[in-house]
Amino acid sequence: MAIREKMFETITKVFKKHGGVTIDTPVFELKDILAGKYGEDSKLIYDLEDQGGEKCSLRYDLTVPFARYLAMNGTSTQQMKRYQIAKVYRRDQPAMTKGRMREFYQCDFDIAGSYDNMIPDAEAITVMIEALTALSVGDFKIKINHRQILDGMFAICGVPEDKIRPISSAVDKSDKLSWEEVRKEMVEEKGLDGAVADKIGEYIKLKGGQELCSSLLENAELSNNSSAKEGIESMKLLFEYLEIFGVLDKISFDLSLARGLDYYTGVIYEAVLELPEEIAPPSKSSKGSKEQDEEQTRIGSIAAGGRYDNLVGMFASGSSKKESNVKIPCVGISIGVERVFSILLKQAKMEEIKSNAVQVYVMSVRDGLLKERMAICKELWSHDIAAEFMYKAKPKLQNQFNACDRDHIPLAVIIGEQELLDNKVKIKNMGDKSSEQAGGLLYDRDQMVSTLKTMLKML
Amino acid sequence: MAIREKMFETITKVFKKHGGVTIDTPVFELKDILAGKYGEDSKLIYDLEDQGGEKCSLRYDLTVPFARYLAMNGTSTQQMKRYQIAKVYRRDQPAMTKGRMREFYQCDFDIAGSYDNMIPDAEAITVMIEALTALSVGDFKIKINHRQILDGMFAICGVPEDKIRPISSAVDKSDKLSWEEVRKEMVEEKGLDGAVADKIGEYIKLKGGQELCSSLLENAELSNNSSAKEGIESMKLLFEYLEIFGVLDKISFDLSLARGLDYYTGVIYEAVLELPEEIAPPSKSSKGSKEQDEEQTRIGSIAAGGRYDNLVGMFASGSSKKESNVKIPCVGISIGVERVFSILLKQAKMEEIKSNAVQVYVMSVRDGLLKERMAICKELWSHDIAAEFMYKAKPKLQNQFNACDRDHIPLAVIIGEQELLDNKVKIKNMGDKSSEQAGGLLYDRDQMVSTLKTMLKML
Repeated sequence: MAIREKMFETITKVFKKHGGVTIDTPVFELKDILAGKYGEDSKLIYDLEDQGGEKCSLRYDLTVPFARYLAMNGTSTQQMKRYQIAKVYRRDQPAMTKGRMREFYQCDFDIAGSYDNMIPDAEAITVMIEALTALSVGDFKIKINHRQILDGMFAICGVPEDKIRPISSAVDKSDKLSWEEVRKEMVEEKGLDGAVADKIGEYIKLKGGQELCSSLLENAELSNNSSAKEGIESMKLLFEYLEIFGVLDKISFDLSLARGLDYYTGVIYEAVLELPEEIAPPSKSSKGSKEQDEEQTRIGSIAAGGRYDNLVGMFASGSSKKESNVKIPCVGISIGVERVFSILLKQAKMEEIKSNAVQVYVMSVRDGLLKERMAICKELWSHDIAAEFMYKAKPKLQNQFNACDRDHIPLAVIIGEQELLDNKVKIKNMGDKSSEQAGGLLYDRDQMVSTLKTMLKML
Repeated sequence: MAIREKMFETITKVFKKHGGVTIDTPVFELKDILAGKYGEDSKLIYDLEDQGGEKCSLRYDLTVPFARYLAMNGTSTQQMKRYQIAKVYRRDQPAMTKGRMREFYQCDFDIAGSYDNMIPDAEAITVMIEALTALSVGDFKIKINHRQILDGMFAICGVPEDKIRPISSAVDKSDKLSWEEVRKEMVEEKGLDGAVADKIGEYIKLKGGQELCSSLLENAELSNNSSAKEGIESMKLLFEYLEIFGVLDKISFDLSLARGLDYYTGVIYEAVLELPEEIAPPSKSSKGSKEQDEEQTRIGSIAAGGRYDNLVGMFASGSSKKESNVKIPCVGISIGVERVFSILLKQAKMEEIKSNAVQVYVMSVRDGLLKERMAICKELWSHDIAAEFMYKAKPKLQNQFNACDRDHIPLAVIIGEQELLDNKVKIKNMGDKSSEQAGGLLYDRDQMVSTLKTMLKML
């Protein structure tokens, strides 16, 4: 939890720096709110038992509850930067090593409201990059694409309307499967014409940076398709903004990125860890087992997001007048903190983690002196110093030192009968192993608090 | 959420000052874990639908999951100060005005482990008092009693074994019902002998401070009952420790406090707001409607807790060897933050609450200057200054000022074509309404960050 709290604190700081405010949504929603939002993954939704009253389900992500919240608040919340760090629930087979659990945290930042094209999108991507950088998870890249370019591309290649979604989902696998496997899924499983698949194959090879926008615009087929053209021009604008925000070096425009969720309408992106050579997955090949590849890719993807302009409107068409006609465009990011956490956990030296915040341990030599130790703790608490003592009338000195070491408590106040008589205390810097400091140094009792405060500042 | 976050921060600070570490338990537990722990309130437990797999329920409080956690960790976690701020779930009729909801936060602090008698109990009560004081909720008292004294008292009065629990629950109502009503419930509803009830009535009148311990010990009946005697002697010790911790003025020893939950075994306590005269409930009378009285008492009680030495052992008798024979005594507190929140919300001046953390708003006069505003924001973010700009290519100046005012953003950076040419920026302290400051003061562009940092420090 110490590592987890630090992680949340780091992310929250970035979210707040960009004007985010947090809202809290309930852990369960009406069942109907979640229905039909997650494609075939809907089977992973947890339902509450029908004990009378409304039928409810545990939230599956933080995006749908946020859109429901915006729709309910109608015209009063047309613009908002919101963040939320909270748990979501999936009826999945847990796999701890992959960071996959039934209950896990998501960290979301979303910008809701009608604004000039691509400005909030650029800030959302920048927030994602700043947060991942602050977390020190290692090198990463942001793959980026646009739903309108994908739609245009599929139309140009001749994908029938009813096959766009399944073909899109096959394309999305091209980071973990070889082209032969992706093509096979398109043609054999999903019945796409082989020539159409090959044309898609040519497009999704395209990757690059800012310059890719211009070369795509020079492609006659794409620039004659209004959807693709709009998408490319948006990307051009986005790249200009991302350049100003100083994050271009992290961005990779990648026409094979297709992101699964149904509700994306504009730019889509995914942050992928760049694994060091020695632990990078083997180069794509149809020989490697599919499962193994999937596992490796899973660990690679650590954040994602995109624009979803129609989700709020889906709830807003409800019965209440207040809710009608609300259409709030949104763009957002979601950081997969469980994966980030498992990386940070591996980096951490467990023995060095201090899980509690105690600064001073109050102990006695001989005689117990319970009430005197309690009185000193009381004084320290009242000066906002975190302090503990052993809950024993007559504790052994060694046990008290052990407790102090175990919890990495930096300072000790030590009292004995003699110190009490002389109106003194001993203070020991636990990190100082020099012999003259062994039993602590002597201070006047009324200098105790100020001495401790000075020493704490210098730690 | 701004008020709520501040509240949690205040409470967390106190918990950490006393060495608390936080743990996270899942929002749902196996159904069997919760069964039989909450008496007749068990009907309020939310169950998950049986979709295959384990039968689960949403947690009803944080105490039972903590005890389950301790039992599962077996001998590796014999001592622990844990805090947890998390939501719990009850299938109740919501009543927002009373702070009663189906999903709500609890803030718990518990001390687990075998220690010398009453030392951790004294610290737990002190933590509760420090937290409530830090929250500035108003004057409060801690009513305190001991399960062993109650058990002894019921035995002395002649309450049959099988009636102790229902009679105890009737006694617990004596803060909201008149004695006549409590007596009626005991005798008419619960079939207690009238003379026995009257004897109980004499005992539960007893209230006081530290001195009550001595006078109870002088009572021959009580001091001849081993359970009562042990309880009173523990209370005597507790009072000595509470005196050292400087909190005696908050404590009221009250033999009528009986706390509902089944799992308490030792000291029990409840923090009650002392309402100012004008909004205090009318003095007890059988005329006032019962519901009205209950509502008022509900608002009064803001925290509670007690010692539960046998709860961990109930889970520890499970199948796994690791878990067997684990018996960890615990004492804890739970702060009813929804009630505290509704009090703080009433005190707050809503128009003065700043919900986001933005420090600087970057705006332009005429010409839009979108990319220049973005570049300035980027510079501020990289210096850890929270900044925003309007997501519009050509925003009106007045709209930018309005946004700045609405979000209580203290500083504005204002640029125009002339400032850009001169390599200058204007900085405006939004709180300074003097006319010479109206359009902001001019600074060199390369002094912008340091000037803003200085101004932010002085706010």
